[in-house]
Amino acid sequence: MTELLPRRSDLDLIDIAFDESRARGSFLLQPPLLRHDGTLYGGTAIAASIMAMEAATQNAVLWNTTQFVAPAPNGSTIDLLTEKLAAGKRISQLSVTARVEGSIVFTSLGSTGAPREGGLEGQYEQMPAVSGPEEATGREYPRPEFAFDHPDGDVTFRRMCEYRDAEIVNTDRVGPGTMMLWSRFNERREMTPAAIAFLADMVPVAVARAAGKHGAGTSLDNSLRFVDVPHTEWVLLEMQGNFAGGGYGHGMIRVWSQDGKLLATGSQSASMIYVFNEDEPPPHR
Amino acid sequence: MTELLPRRSDLDLIDIAFDESRARGSFLLQPPLLRHDGTLYGGTAIAASIMAMEAATQNAVLWNTTQFVAPAPNGSTIDLLTEKLAAGKRISQLSVTARVEGSIVFTSLGSTGAPREGGLEGQYEQMPAVSGPEEATGREYPRPEFAFDHPDGDVTFRRMCEYRDAEIVNTDRVGPGTMMLWSRFNERREMTPAAIAFLADMVPVAVARAAGKHGAGTSLDNSLRFVDVPHTEWVLLEMQGNFAGGGYGHGMIRVWSQDGKLLATGSQSASMIYVFNEDEPPPHR
Repeated sequence: MTELLPRRSDLDLIDIAFDESRARGSFLLQPPLLRHDGTLYGGTAIAASIMAMEAATQNAVLWNTTQFVAPAPNGSTIDLLTEKLAAGKRISQLSVTARVEGSIVFTSLGSTGAPREGGLEGQYEQMPAVSGPEEATGREYPRPEFAFDHPDGDVTFRRMCEYRDAEIVNTDRVGPGTMMLWSRFNERREMTPAAIAFLADMVPVAVARAAGKHGAGTSLDNSLRFVDVPHTEWVLLEMQGNFAGGGYGHGMIRVWSQDGKLLATGSQSASMIYVFNEDEPPPHR
Repeated sequence: MTELLPRRSDLDLIDIAFDESRARGSFLLQPPLLRHDGTLYGGTAIAASIMAMEAATQNAVLWNTTQFVAPAPNGSTIDLLTEKLAAGKRISQLSVTARVEGSIVFTSLGSTGAPREGGLEGQYEQMPAVSGPEEATGREYPRPEFAFDHPDGDVTFRRMCEYRDAEIVNTDRVGPGTMMLWSRFNERREMTPAAIAFLADMVPVAVARAAGKHGAGTSLDNSLRFVDVPHTEWVLLEMQGNFAGGGYGHGMIRVWSQDGKLLATGSQSASMIYVFNEDEPPPHR
């Protein structure tokens, strides 16, 4: 790993100031790092956590599970602390704790690792056949049902990126609960694990869609796993709503490069309290 | 939730003694809670963590990510501490830290929750068509390549449970990297989230098989998501090796009841250092 971590392009996304040890960092929560209710967007949280793990170890992230503990309002300063639970020759086992004025807002576990020469390499699945991003419909999806009313217009993460419904050409391997979105940043930006994490915090929407509903849920966590990310403008988010019980829903995601390389896998659980039928008004929050 | 947690049958599996607050517990690591090299088995770790979360909150687990930090030798006393990062009316956001003589051996994040009346319920996928457990071959899989030489014979978790290769009847949705195992406990035992976690710590084996190799890896973590578990003697472990890079492999799991209810989903990352070709001797550890 020759590039200094965090990557310049990730800092353009979330401007984290690290101390000299790179174990501590902080950033100002501001538009467009917000979700539709004007608080910390989950994709911002897991992206910041990945950047913190990579900064502290100078190795690329292997996996990261981020648990959402409390909402953080616009304008908060978020303090990140990365702790090395175990540091081997190649692999670091890490935790990240994010606080606002001393109170935890999210917490993460994860690993970074140096690649091993001659170590196992491979991809054991193929990207499903879908229509390309240029043919995909540009309709706004998911629609921001809970808009944050702000004089500057859209202050959410949606201002940064684009989502387009992809049409499934070959339905082998994909069930009725599968949702396919092409996504990219509006401004050209290097696709990295943190950037993917920022775009991919969408699984609860797929759980709602799998259930034939609109809306989404409040994520409890987001868990992602990565390999090396090559250059790609678009990524395909292949999401699968798996199941729901007692009001809690669970789903999976695969993230593909435009030419079919599997870049990341992941899963999320959510409290599915904002789901509604097409002919119903959205529930009040 | 009328039953006191942890469940009696889970305590029969791992005999954790909890204090009055149920936030602290401890258990003696002994056969058959071990893996093949005679240290703490990953499935024991995540099962104990789930039991700790359920005990501390008296609610069923929704998801649990357990990170394996350091090996714990046979004979260790493992101390568990559950902390409530956030406790809402229904949902608790939790961490569990497991220590041996003050040093962390594993750590977890996860949630428990009370079901919401009228909340979202559903299953958005079907179990793949496979041969039933009675027709499945009973051959020992995965073979214990790294046997722990012990005068009492098999002291590993494998003494508790059985794995049988299931034959895939319909290959829709399942790729070449899919591995199907029927599994059950040798002694009849209630199937619970903790029991499933004990059986399901197998994804690195599926990554190796997807790569056309034998062996497995050293798990970095295990992440599982659950709904209510009905009575089932057998569970089907549907595992998918996703990808590997730089010697690190990642895969997914779905756990099905015998009659096709999806009980759990999950994913794991591993350092794939114990993979070898069929005609090679296993690497020394």
